Amino acid sequence: MDEIIKNGIKEDMNNIDITTDNLIDDKSRSTAHLLAKEEGIIAGLCIAERVFKILDKDVKVKFHAKDGDKVEKGKIIATIEGSTKAILKGERLALNLLQRMSGIATASGKYRDVVKSFPVRITDTRKTTPGLRILEKYAVRVGGCFNHRYNLSEAVLIKDNHIVAAGGIKEAIHKIKNNVSHTIKVEVEVKSIKELKEAIEAGADIVMLDNMSLEDMKKAVEISKGRVILEASGGITIDELVEVAKTGVDVISVGSLTHSVKAMDISLNIID
Amino acid sequence: MDEIIKNGIKEDMNNIDITTDNLIDDKSRSTAHLLAKEEGIIAGLCIAERVFKILDKDVKVKFHAKDGDKVEKGKIIATIEGSTKAILKGERLALNLLQRMSGIATASGKYRDVVKSFPVRITDTRKTTPGLRILEKYAVRVGGCFNHRYNLSEAVLIKDNHIVAAGGIKEAIHKIKNNVSHTIKVEVEVKSIKELKEAIEAGADIVMLDNMSLEDMKKAVEISKGRVILEASGGITIDELVEVAKTGVDVISVGSLTHSVKAMDISLNIID
Amino acid sequence: MDEIIKNGIKEDMNNIDITTDNLIDDKSRSTAHLLAKEEGIIAGLCIAERVFKILDKDVKVKFHAKDGDKVEKGKIIATIEGSTKAILKGERLALNLLQRMSGIATASGKYRDVVKSFPVRITDTRKTTPGLRILEKYAVRVGGCFNHRYNLSEAVLIKDNHIVAAGGIKEAIHKIKNNVSHTIKVEVEVKSIKELKEAIEAGADIVMLDNMSLEDMKKAVEISKGRVILEASGGITIDELVEVAKTGVDVISVGSLTHSVKAMDISLNIID
Amino acid sequence: MDEIIKNGIKEDMNNIDITTDNLIDDKSRSTAHLLAKEEGIIAGLCIAERVFKILDKDVKVKFHAKDGDKVEKGKIIATIEGSTKAILKGERLALNLLQRMSGIATASGKYRDVVKSFPVRITDTRKTTPGLRILEKYAVRVGGCFNHRYNLSEAVLIKDNHIVAAGGIKEAIHKIKNNVSHTIKVEVEVKSIKELKEAIEAGADIVMLDNMSLEDMKKAVEISKGRVILEASGGITIDELVEVAKTGVDVISVGSLTHSVKAMDISLNIID
Amino acid sequence: MDEIIKNGIKEDMNNIDITTDNLIDDKSRSTAHLLAKEEGIIAGLCIAERVFKILDKDVKVKFHAKDGDKVEKGKIIATIEGSTKAILKGERLALNLLQRMSGIATASGKYRDVVKSFPVRITDTRKTTPGLRILEKYAVRVGGCFNHRYNLSEAVLIKDNHIVAAGGIKEAIHKIKNNVSHTIKVEVEVKSIKELKEAIEAGADIVMLDNMSLEDMKKAVEISKGRVILEASGGITIDELVEVAKTGVDVISVGSLTHSVKAMDISLNIID
Amino acid sequence: MDEIIKNGIKEDMNNIDITTDNLIDDKSRSTAHLLAKEEGIIAGLCIAERVFKILDKDVKVKFHAKDGDKVEKGKIIATIEGSTKAILKGERLALNLLQRMSGIATASGKYRDVVKSFPVRITDTRKTTPGLRILEKYAVRVGGCFNHRYNLSEAVLIKDNHIVAAGGIKEAIHKIKNNVSHTIKVEVEVKSIKELKEAIEAGADIVMLDNMSLEDMKKAVEISKGRVILEASGGITIDELVEVAKTGVDVISVGSLTHSVKAMDISLNIID
Repeated sequence: MDEIIKNGIKEDMNNIDITTDNLIDDKSRSTAHLLAKEEGIIAGLCIAERVFKILDKDVKVKFHAKDGDKVEKGKIIATIEGSTKAILKGERLALNLLQRMSGIATASGKYRDVVKSFPVRITDTRKTTPGLRILEKYAVRVGGCFNHRYNLSEAVLIKDNHIVAAGGIKEAIHKIKNNVSHTIKVEVEVKSIKELKEAIEAGADIVMLDNMSLEDMKKAVEISKGRVILEASGGITIDELVEVAKTGVDVISVGSLTHSVKAMDISLNIID
Repeated sequence: MDEIIKNGIKEDMNNIDITTDNLIDDKSRSTAHLLAKEEGIIAGLCIAERVFKILDKDVKVKFHAKDGDKVEKGKIIATIEGSTKAILKGERLALNLLQRMSGIATASGKYRDVVKSFPVRITDTRKTTPGLRILEKYAVRVGGCFNHRYNLSEAVLIKDNHIVAAGGIKEAIHKIKNNVSHTIKVEVEVKSIKELKEAIEAGADIVMLDNMSLEDMKKAVEISKGRVILEASGGITIDELVEVAKTGVDVISVGSLTHSVKAMDISLNIID
Repeated sequence: MDEIIKNGIKEDMNNIDITTDNLIDDKSRSTAHLLAKEEGIIAGLCIAERVFKILDKDVKVKFHAKDGDKVEKGKIIATIEGSTKAILKGERLALNLLQRMSGIATASGKYRDVVKSFPVRITDTRKTTPGLRILEKYAVRVGGCFNHRYNLSEAVLIKDNHIVAAGGIKEAIHKIKNNVSHTIKVEVEVKSIKELKEAIEAGADIVMLDNMSLEDMKKAVEISKGRVILEASGGITIDELVEVAKTGVDVISVGSLTHSVKAMDISLNIID
Repeated sequence: MDEIIKNGIKEDMNNIDITTDNLIDDKSRSTAHLLAKEEGIIAGLCIAERVFKILDKDVKVKFHAKDGDKVEKGKIIATIEGSTKAILKGERLALNLLQRMSGIATASGKYRDVVKSFPVRITDTRKTTPGLRILEKYAVRVGGCFNHRYNLSEAVLIKDNHIVAAGGIKEAIHKIKNNVSHTIKVEVEVKSIKELKEAIEAGADIVMLDNMSLEDMKKAVEISKGRVILEASGGITIDELVEVAKTGVDVISVGSLTHSVKAMDISLNIID
Repeated sequence: MDEIIKNGIKEDMNNIDITTDNLIDDKSRSTAHLLAKEEGIIAGLCIAERVFKILDKDVKVKFHAKDGDKVEKGKIIATIEGSTKAILKGERLALNLLQRMSGIATASGKYRDVVKSFPVRITDTRKTTPGLRILEKYAVRVGGCFNHRYNLSEAVLIKDNHIVAAGGIKEAIHKIKNNVSHTIKVEVEVKSIKELKEAIEAGADIVMLDNMSLEDMKKAVEISKGRVILEASGGITIDELVEVAKTGVDVISVGSLTHSVKAMDISLNIID
Repeated sequence: MDEIIKNGIKEDMNNIDITTDNLIDDKSRSTAHLLAKEEGIIAGLCIAERVFKILDKDVKVKFHAKDGDKVEKGKIIATIEGSTKAILKGERLALNLLQRMSGIATASGKYRDVVKSFPVRITDTRKTTPGLRILEKYAVRVGGCFNHRYNLSEAVLIKDNHIVAAGGIKEAIHKIKNNVSHTIKVEVEVKSIKELKEAIEAGADIVMLDNMSLEDMKKAVEISKGRVILEASGGITIDELVEVAKTGVDVISVGSLTHSVKAMDISLNIID
């Protein structure tokens, strides 16, 4: 986390902050508010705090909300006290992180609410911003959704090309199970009910139903009978969510939670 | 650029790619297409290419479009040939970067088109993704818009708190001009026509009209008579753009070009 | 991998190689052999090659064995041709890595051979050398054993303190399953048959039998009936391996594969 | 030192500790013991402490032994108090370092004890673990042995190939003395008494007797008459140590002190 | 700043400080003075302090002068109290930085004094020491001179080759103004009065008069009439400064402020 | 070396080169000369070449002189061919390094020439530019002088405070010899003939005569009779060099070789 912030500070200030360093006194101290300018779910307060602390360890941040809270427009989320220079220099980076993470949490909250009454998980994907995955996956959880695998090292996901290379679904699953740690789950992407059956028989732990029709998803649920975790995937929008949930799949993965984020509008106002 | 990519690779693969490294042969080679799944302006082809080259320097990428081209849905943007392992491992990172950059370029193109007939610049802001600013600002230019200052070190932007600390607009401008390099422009944020006049008289190079009414913007243009560059700012949406442009301001800065990006839909398909 | 090597080069040469840089001509070229001075299983040939290539990209390495081969004492493993300076500077680092990795592979091969006829996996642990885990876990696989989880982020392993904090085995398992990705397996460490039963009922994927008696391990196998993967753990030596394997557990994890490595004796001899 | 630890933490936790972060409360505090599970010489307490402090600066570690102490089985070496999360996350890394360093110190202590009554130094070599040399060389000293040169930049060691390239022992020594700093000692590796004489005459500071017979070592001591430091080298085992020491050489270098380490058995137990 | 220091510490101590770490007790504390051994302007006190604080956060430094003060020979600049080891290890690095920065400030002070009565700025150039630019440019300001552009990203400076490539001064200026941010100033290097006129007409903000005669500089001032900032450049020595200033140019840039620095003589004396 | 260059490039170009990247075509190729604008000894050609190669691996550099050559004013040192953009972007960094290193080599050459007929070495000190020591020490050797110890880890240098802490010169030397590697030389700084005698008796390898009179230096030479290396030190200027050399000391160390460097005047001219 500190690395992301230090990197961000260097990006925003390769030399000095020529405005602030020339106009603001070293000893000047200020109080500022983080203000929600629209409704949303807050995520990333600690990282925003850390931005200021890295610039000046004596900055104090008091939170009036916590990650996961849905706040109203106008809510003062936190009060920051300390060196004016640190507050002005850190403002943009802190907001860039906080707004993005809260945007993700807010979207995640909306997706989750839509299918609240169904025993289904909404998960993210690996379609995250390079360098910020750890923060974005955290924001997804804050918003009430779940994470899919963190990265290529964490879980197996066998796709088309892997299947072709291995000579079939069964062969691919057997080969991989013979090689990877017993702590690793094996997921397979299938395009048809036939492939699903093959995957289940070969011992897959999870089967991803790639761009399947609602009909086929229902069939998949009937066939699986809980033997594998069924994951619906493929550009599913918020409007289709309920229909997909009704099929009985266990998981719906949604790339747009992280790849197309609308930042939550939050501002920093120096009040004193 | 290479640093962003290497960082992204490590994020997505802290150990090995347990699926690909166990199922795909070292010597296997493939051909893949980058395919536009919706209309948009492409940005970031070189960085996508670089992802694969860093994974395996013998991967060849042939471009069928170049950055800045508006492509139709269905257009094959590039052909990638080389190690199947490198293609599978780099796919997600290359797309995450290319889709985001193309998303920014596409949005920038839309903003620019709306005010094409006006002598006004649309610019980005510092509301970029931490760690990716250099790429995002590039994508803005590719899309036909302009950059605002790169960071806090590059140009002066005097805001409220700086003015209060210096004891007034005039005092702030004089003090800063006495300190910074003669190669640096001085921009001041003003909230009223009165402040604008003060800024012009004190020798500002650029004046940011913060959340001003269209009326006041027009007045500002009349008063300035070209002595300063006038920049309209403050949550201006694409729908308001023409009205703002009509006031005669020189620059309109738009945070949403980078802070709320809809990724362009692009996929990588292994065809052989 | 390159990072490990570059770090190792800097460690071994913070300034110049004062002997070689003062006595050997820039243009001098040599041929050298990597020679097995004892029997063992080779692992790490690519990383040894990479050491020389990073010092001078024109060094050529020809392999006469491949990772996983059991070689006899006296076997010439590889021939290195290129800049004498690069060969002399890289010798120690290349050997330090190759000897250590081959030592791990050799030990792993011995453990595996002992239980070859049993349907049991021998795995490593997280007791690896800080900074070299990726290489050491690779060497374990080369030697014919398996990996346990790569790190704390990859799979869940619930221990005593986690259980106490959660208020019981069942509570811990339920809580964790409600939070982590559906792609993650959950392992629980138990100390008794009673705890094992609780873990199975609560839905654990893997149960680690910590320092259990052979008797209890057998009971565990009977109880589990394949519902969970059973892992024996706790300072199990190579002499006890067969007895443990006979109990029918699925996995035996062995820390000494990596924490107490006897380097395989390999030397580099310049022959021309 | 901090770099090694931070690197180790990232290796063991690229994302979060999915078990601990989901089951243990942020505010939970614990007390833990570091316990010697076998006799040995402790080395690395400060670095173990530092692991926890880097994870949470408020962790307190109280030492009940200090580096260099020989502790009995069952000895509580240190008490750790602080955030349960930090203790659980740092446990493995702290032990991996402490066990390895204590293993080296323990072996060093054994070697030293064997030749305690002789005026001879046992030294390590450059056969250390890449990335951990500074810690391993420290552990050797803690155990009562000495360091050989730290790396290729610190002292001259002229070997076969250097001699051939320079055209002879005399030529090599003269050339190097004419080039390197006057603060640098020059060591030469010799294979015969004849070469030894040449090296002494040419002004070597140290002569390494490579794989020489005990007979020849004795002759070397008689010939040198204290003019050079004599170092015996070449796979000398602990059983041969006394015989080698009796020849009167000044230094015996032993690669196995660091290249084949048996980790000392130490555990971390949360007691409260 | 911390990065420069940490890098410097590693350069000066790749392993341990073999003298201090073997002879000085961990608990030993000392008091030391930073003493000016010649007259000069001090710059870099904070960075000197930071060197010691990074080695031991409990070192206290009391300043008896501040950056920008001209001190006499014999002046005690600061008193350092804390760990003897930290003081001895940090001494050389702290002095290397402080002496160099004070040398730059002292030279800058001399240049400025010579033209104090003229409305002209003396500025530095990009001829700084790689890795230390931020410190050297700071020292120039401390000494009373000004900075030129920080780096290639900060301001436009169109030279010969750019002009040739663009097809003329006018074309180059128009092209660049159409591409770069409105916050960026455009400087053009000219070699003749004719080129100056072209640059002014094309809308340059600053014109660099490269190696022009005093005559031509005067003409340039007359022609410009304040429409552009005029900068004299090209190996101007301190002896020529007044004559150049008399021409009425606005800025004189001087490479030797940073490329040929005479370190100010400052010593660190342990007094207790 | 690459690290220094990459760091330097990032310092000089945190974003893009806004002039060159906007005005010069990607495909434009140029030829440039490195031209000596004053007489001097060249050092650093390889690092200058490397700057361009890192920016574009296809740049070709042909050397017309080699490191250590004394070149006349007007000499074309090297010809550079390749991407115009790479040449323009790398120009300043390449020159900053080459000019500084050549300045050091030139000064070193002058010092050496003055005492050419004496059997004395001129050496540098640790008063180098933080971050560039490896290059500066290389330039000293290129100029015909010698290096003193590289850093605090490489050789022992016992000073006042170390002596006081150890309880005397003898005690300090004995203690250190009992602790450090047998490959390390021990140097002691003395202020009087009495201390010199003590140091020789205690077994020092080198004695630094700190700020001694010529008289005392002569006495020191008589007393030592070659038993130790004698090093004169303490602000010795080029004018005093011959007198000091005449005393018969072995080494004269000179801080100003590196701490107060006059850059050699070298320019890069694009000729085509």
